[in-house]
Formats: sequence, C-alpha cells, structure tokens
Amino acid sequence: MTGCVFCRIVAGQEAAEVLYEDEEIMAFKDIHPAAPVHVLIIPKAHYARLEEVPHNQAALLGRLFLVARDLAERLGIQRSGYRLILNNGPNSGQIIFHIHLHLLGGRRLGKLG
Amino acid sequence: MTGCVFCRIVAGQEAAEVLYEDEEIMAFKDIHPAAPVHVLIIPKAHYARLEEVPHNQAALLGRLFLVARDLAERLGIQRSGYRLILNNGPNSGQIIFHIHLHLLGGRRLGKLG
Repeated sequence: MTGCVFCRIVAGQEAAEVLYEDEEIMAFKDIHPAAPVHVLIIPKAHYARLEEVPHNQAALLGRLFLVARDLAERLGIQRSGYRLILNNGPNSGQIIFHIHLHLLGGRRLGKLG
Repeated sequence: MTGCVFCRIVAGQEAAEVLYEDEEIMAFKDIHPAAPVHVLIIPKAHYARLEEVPHNQAALLGRLFLVARDLAERLGIQRSGYRLILNNGPNSGQIIFHIHLHLLGGRRLGKLG
C-alpha cells in the first residue's frame, strides 16, 4: 500500500467525500476546511511537486482549473467568487506531497499569504 | 485604447517589469508585491474571469502553471517553495478583471486566505 494518502484515496483505500472524478482527475473535500467551501482537485497520477510534471502535461494541469471552476458553479460560489491555490514546497505550507489545487470560497477571503 | 491595464501591458502601452513572454503568455512583477517574489502570469488573450475561458483552452491554462514554475526556478525560489494563486470574483479579492496567476515566494507564507 502506498504511503501517499491522495494515492490511497484515488485507489479507494482511504475514505474521502468525493465530489468529482474522471479518468485523470479527482476532487474531494478537504478534511481540515479553511473556508465554508474547501475542495482539493488532484491529478490521479502521483506528482509530488509541480517540478515533476512533464511539459507535455499542460492540458492536465489546465484541467485542474477547469474542474475547479465547474465545481465552484455546482457548489454555488461562482458569483460570490473563489480562490484557487497550489502550494509547492516548504515556504508554501505544502503538507501532502501529491500536487493538489485548493478551491476556497463561501466567505470573504483574506491576504494571499 | 483598452480599459484593461493587463491588455495595455501586453500591447506595450503600459510599462511593466516583464520577466517572461511568448506568443500566448506574459509574466511581470506585481507593482504591489505581497512577498519578496511576486510575479503575475497572464494569458495575453483577455479573459475577465475563469468562466470565460473555453474548455479547449486547458493547455493554455496549464501553461500558466508551467511558466510559473520555470520562473520560480529562474528566480531562485524553487527549493524554498512558492504559492500559486488565482483569484476569481468578489470574495477572492480579484481586482484586475483579466485572469492572472500570482507567483508568491521568498518568505514563509501564511494562511490560505
């Protein structure tokens, strides 16, 4: 069994509140929400950091944005607005080393960091 | 002359400290930096909000990430880490209505918002 919690979620070996799934991408609620809406959108493939993603995977990375915005609409925060965040490396506060896009909304958001 | 300040930067009608440019994408320093490194990466095409980007532009959106990470390496913050942020709509604090990815680094970053 893999040591990566997101890979275990993708494999169905770990519980998560899944909101979206296709062949390449999965989205589920953050278990420590920082806002009323806090969803994580991940590629199913394991990339620990952004540096590991090959240049030919631009469309996959872009689809993280597109899935996030479609979820924002579904979750009723498209008009009120939302923030998308990708943390990468020590200074960012990245704690799970499988890249993930945070979708945050449902309240007025503060500073960028 | 367009009312969009980022479109004017793209057109060379407004000054900016440009760090990267190709046919589709431009990156320049934020004039109100929120961290020691604060760069904005934008598509040259004008999309006011993420909702306006067509689904067939996933690769363009993904290239915003790839350009950001390549800049992070060039600017010496790849190892120390960085945060990428896209603000979209009122609650996020978006103020320029031409989509842009923030690259923030050079110090320990705080909360997600």
